[in-house]
Amino acid sequence: MTPDTFNRFAESHLPLAYQLGFRAEAIGDGTATVRMPFHDSSLRPGGTIAGPSMMGVADFTMYAALMGAIGQVELAVTTNFNINFLRRPAQNDVISKCRVMKLGKRLAVLEVTLFSEGDDDPIAHATGTYSLPPP
Amino acid sequence: MTPDTFNRFAESHLPLAYQLGFRAEAIGDGTATVRMPFHDSSLRPGGTIAGPSMMGVADFTMYAALMGAIGQVELAVTTNFNINFLRRPAQNDVISKCRVMKLGKRLAVLEVTLFSEGDDDPIAHATGTYSLPPP
Amino acid sequence: MTPDTFNRFAESHLPLAYQLGFRAEAIGDGTATVRMPFHDSSLRPGGTIAGPSMMGVADFTMYAALMGAIGQVELAVTTNFNINFLRRPAQNDVISKCRVMKLGKRLAVLEVTLFSEGDDDPIAHATGTYSLPPP
Amino acid sequence: MTPDTFNRFAESHLPLAYQLGFRAEAIGDGTATVRMPFHDSSLRPGGTIAGPSMMGVADFTMYAALMGAIGQVELAVTTNFNINFLRRPAQNDVISKCRVMKLGKRLAVLEVTLFSEGDDDPIAHATGTYSLPPP
Repeated sequence: MTPDTFNRFAESHLPLAYQLGFRAEAIGDGTATVRMPFHDSSLRPGGTIAGPSMMGVADFTMYAALMGAIGQVELAVTTNFNINFLRRPAQNDVISKCRVMKLGKRLAVLEVTLFSEGDDDPIAHATGTYSLPPP
Repeated sequence: MTPDTFNRFAESHLPLAYQLGFRAEAIGDGTATVRMPFHDSSLRPGGTIAGPSMMGVADFTMYAALMGAIGQVELAVTTNFNINFLRRPAQNDVISKCRVMKLGKRLAVLEVTLFSEGDDDPIAHATGTYSLPPP
Repeated sequence: MTPDTFNRFAESHLPLAYQLGFRAEAIGDGTATVRMPFHDSSLRPGGTIAGPSMMGVADFTMYAALMGAIGQVELAVTTNFNINFLRRPAQNDVISKCRVMKLGKRLAVLEVTLFSEGDDDPIAHATGTYSLPPP
Repeated sequence: MTPDTFNRFAESHLPLAYQLGFRAEAIGDGTATVRMPFHDSSLRPGGTIAGPSMMGVADFTMYAALMGAIGQVELAVTTNFNINFLRRPAQNDVISKCRVMKLGKRLAVLEVTLFSEGDDDPIAHATGTYSLPPP
């Protein structure tokens, strides 16, 4: 699974995320990096990026990292997702980095850290569980 | 805070949610009901509604219920959000219902249950914490 | 599964919970009520009951409610647990009430609400996921 | 705040954790390492360590790491705690490592990773939020 392959898959299968500009930039064996471009429509009161946009890119990055580990298993589905917002994001692209923490036969657990591009202090941290379909 | 007031606020301050058609249908003292209309762009592989769309409407409903309790406090912000996906949603509108579980001086904790319209079995359950600005 | 059956099971299989006095008082089809007796050793600074004691009774109550739904499936295991603390608990017994929100073939999702005995305002709210062994 | 200082504090203020043998082994500026000794009373069906024991040591480690960052602020309290269980723990001591991810004026967010001693693959991962008292 390369970033290009995943982005073409997203174009046809995750249309909202694709329209919002989410793009995988790197995918490894259980890791992924995704960019969410800054756009005014993502803003919320206070001039910061709305929480749900960050949830969306975090979940998208988990899906990419999982496919980096097990291939294009489309029917893997999120069963639990938890996010903590850490710092006010800048009006800038968000860089989302994921790694698989556990890959079992039936469940995978993943961790995502979100950054404003160019800043090393994370703006949010998420964990999620995916249920994997039987082989 | 009435549904109309909140929806006009969302139109100008939460543009993405408004464009996706999220609309408050009822707001009480610490409660809210929001409709997310079904649209093909919300689909994900398996023909179900994508998780992040459900996260988005859950968070939107929390914001509405919170404003139902304390008024238009725009700078209340989500600090933690947790969601469990319970059942495969139908290709139908999602009805999201929230109640405030705790309203403190600095933090509020809220619970949301999501339904496919016309079905009493919930499709997802979320809890969240909002940090309230100093008065 | 009756409360007596579950408490005898806990005595031999969940020794720490049993020693702390956790006792099921009611078990139904996917529901359970458990009492955690107040004891000085549960206190933390501020004169309130320590968070981990409440986590423990919440998880114990989930296990009881799950067995109320599917019988004595000992190898069901918690995969995710999330808790929000809502109010300072009194120096009193804690009453923990659980219901199953989803019972699938492989996963169950449960919700627990904790009360100080005699007070209707909840002190904590938890959700959890159990992984069920293959039949 | 040194490990000795924290352990003496725990002896008098967190009696249950102290009795279970939880001991800080290292405390830095927003970091902590805690050992939970293996004991038969921590077992659950399947011969593994019960989830609530791991929740307890994770929360204890957060408290230690937070005091490593801000000093002996006893009235910092957990408001949210989330844990994912990743692998079956061995019948061995658990080593719990925490770092502060965000330290604000009112809230701190912390991350804990739990290991069976001698094994580099984590057995559980937790995040938590502490509410900090006004200065």
